[in-house]
Amino acid sequence: MTTLIRQVYHPGRKKEVDLLIEHGVISAIGDTLSSPGAETIDGRGYTLMPALIDIHAHTDKAIFGHPWFRNEMGPNRIDRITYEREHRIPMGLDPYEQTKVMAERFLNYGVLAVRDHIDVDPVQKLRGIEGALRIREEYRELLDMQIVAFPQSGLASMPGVYDLMDQALSMGADLVGGIDPCDIDRDPKASIRMIFDLAEKHDKPVDIHLHEPDTLGAFSLSLILERVRASGMQGRVTISHAFCLGMSNEKLRRSLLEQLAEQDIRIVTCAQAGLDQYPDPKELEAAGVQAAIGNDNGHDLWTPFGTGDMLERAQFAAMKYSFRRDSDLEYAFSLCTDASARFMGMEHYGIETGCRANLLLVRGSCIAECVAMLPQDRIVIRGGRRIRP
Amino acid sequence: MTTLIRQVYHPGRKKEVDLLIEHGVISAIGDTLSSPGAETIDGRGYTLMPALIDIHAHTDKAIFGHPWFRNEMGPNRIDRITYEREHRIPMGLDPYEQTKVMAERFLNYGVLAVRDHIDVDPVQKLRGIEGALRIREEYRELLDMQIVAFPQSGLASMPGVYDLMDQALSMGADLVGGIDPCDIDRDPKASIRMIFDLAEKHDKPVDIHLHEPDTLGAFSLSLILERVRASGMQGRVTISHAFCLGMSNEKLRRSLLEQLAEQDIRIVTCAQAGLDQYPDPKELEAAGVQAAIGNDNGHDLWTPFGTGDMLERAQFAAMKYSFRRDSDLEYAFSLCTDASARFMGMEHYGIETGCRANLLLVRGSCIAECVAMLPQDRIVIRGGRRIRP
Repeated sequence: MTTLIRQVYHPGRKKEVDLLIEHGVISAIGDTLSSPGAETIDGRGYTLMPALIDIHAHTDKAIFGHPWFRNEMGPNRIDRITYEREHRIPMGLDPYEQTKVMAERFLNYGVLAVRDHIDVDPVQKLRGIEGALRIREEYRELLDMQIVAFPQSGLASMPGVYDLMDQALSMGADLVGGIDPCDIDRDPKASIRMIFDLAEKHDKPVDIHLHEPDTLGAFSLSLILERVRASGMQGRVTISHAFCLGMSNEKLRRSLLEQLAEQDIRIVTCAQAGLDQYPDPKELEAAGVQAAIGNDNGHDLWTPFGTGDMLERAQFAAMKYSFRRDSDLEYAFSLCTDASARFMGMEHYGIETGCRANLLLVRGSCIAECVAMLPQDRIVIRGGRRIRP
Repeated sequence: MTTLIRQVYHPGRKKEVDLLIEHGVISAIGDTLSSPGAETIDGRGYTLMPALIDIHAHTDKAIFGHPWFRNEMGPNRIDRITYEREHRIPMGLDPYEQTKVMAERFLNYGVLAVRDHIDVDPVQKLRGIEGALRIREEYRELLDMQIVAFPQSGLASMPGVYDLMDQALSMGADLVGGIDPCDIDRDPKASIRMIFDLAEKHDKPVDIHLHEPDTLGAFSLSLILERVRASGMQGRVTISHAFCLGMSNEKLRRSLLEQLAEQDIRIVTCAQAGLDQYPDPKELEAAGVQAAIGNDNGHDLWTPFGTGDMLERAQFAAMKYSFRRDSDLEYAFSLCTDASARFMGMEHYGIETGCRANLLLVRGSCIAECVAMLPQDRIVIRGGRRIRP
């Protein structure tokens, strides 16, 4: 199948181009191309982008598709964890259905790859993992999914969860998750040992939620660094959130960044507006630490906000980091696309010749305008084929 | 003219009601009302709200309606001030046209009242004020406008601005603006004296931009407090932004709050995501200080973000303050509506019998859902008459 996109704005070339796609790959870019018989897409007025990526999702938590739920949870993280675990089943939330709702939303927005943290806990057990594995299979032609087996309610602190995680990884989950070794899991040494034991047993990478601030987070991070040094997991560990990297103690912060760079541990931030302490991607980059931006929650029992649109997250991140210049908006966008593609290990990602034609056209004159204005007029292309609308 | 809104969800009564509007006023609310010959609006599926209010706008700065402008300004506030002053005229921005574009946006979103800070500086001179005064006249049946004569580039520090401000107030501006007496205006004693001299001369209230953080902001605030005590301006002074009220020094913060409450000085916050220091409306309220939320910028040379929709600002504020529960979303909404109506001195504002029928119907089942989802399906009613769509 051959597709010709006509006169779309190419941000790398800073002009309108024609784009030829053959066998799912961008085969030519030029001022005027022709290809008799090709399916033609009129790109005038649109900006070309590589498909968006959500490097930190929780699709099983989403409550889209249900009537509005009046949320009355308590103020702390552990309240949210407990509230969700207790309300999910009575509310009739089926993780397979919720992941499906999110997959459809992703496709509409042009998000064609996702790293999805799926809860494994004593109530959900493996229902979430089973649901996500089914969706990964059903959507394999449309959406690249990495599934993280995520012990939301605790690993060392929750009897039975280690075995459930072990099963989840045997069933096909792609990464080992983890959560606050001190604050939530209450036994950092055991928590980190379990995470990395599972990773080594199944030969899978790791993505750990670390919300702990300041010196507490720094302590957990130091234990993770010790284990990475000992285990040879360099380049296979992501820390999500890593709020402690925004601590005011500059000496400790810089020491952590230096060690993270040495061990090639990557950082995912979601840049939520309400955070007082959060990593600065530019500081990380300057220290040689790779950073990417994910969406985290979108309308679930943790938070009512968020749609699933990674262009919206680029906007939220730009606002959070006080990015105002066009070049900074482009930078925020690159953290939601190119950086995430590296984290996912995706090859041939981009909008140049030779790249896989997983593309998004958004109505607007440039990347910065699209990040600022969030146009909903989008054309989504997967493997050269127009899939939305 | 009589209008009957049928079966709209009334958040105060927590059920669907019929609403009768006669002579621009809500005359009856009941389970089932009838009024032969009334214009009928089908409210099913909508939530009833009082019209939104933007208590802190800069309509003359907006660049909506122009081609995308590549922003390359410097990193500091003074860079943004200078960049805007120098680019506005070459870009062909006419303040009357830009205020008009924003007025139209406000009406579409259901924002029917605005306090508008209009620049008075040596380049713009009175062009912005003239434009805003024209729009206030042209839109008087649709939009309640308070115009602040705002010395964006400085008052004490900018020769000629005092006289321009004086003229603006004589021409019909409603409030005296001011800006960072230390950081921008460089002479706090003179800056505050000029603001209050103008206020007393014209018998008009004051709304001062105070971005200065920590002890610097506290110092400026202490000078303002001294002047309010001396001048009898209690209840007629608003401080916009007041970042210093988020300082970590709790003793100083509480002392300032106590004095602000005593002098009935009100605080407007815009709850921007990128702020590290910002007032907490709940802490203010507990201290007896009135707070409201405004939108500040919307797509201008200062920031690419923001639409003009105050429901969006309620969402941004909820994210900034980590509001997640429905009751907190309702609180954020009240700061964008009821609180702002008190600041504007609006009477008969609300959705009960006897209130002026300046109303908004938003597709959604409750206030929290509308804040979280920002539905664009809205019906705007002014004086009982449907004006949008």
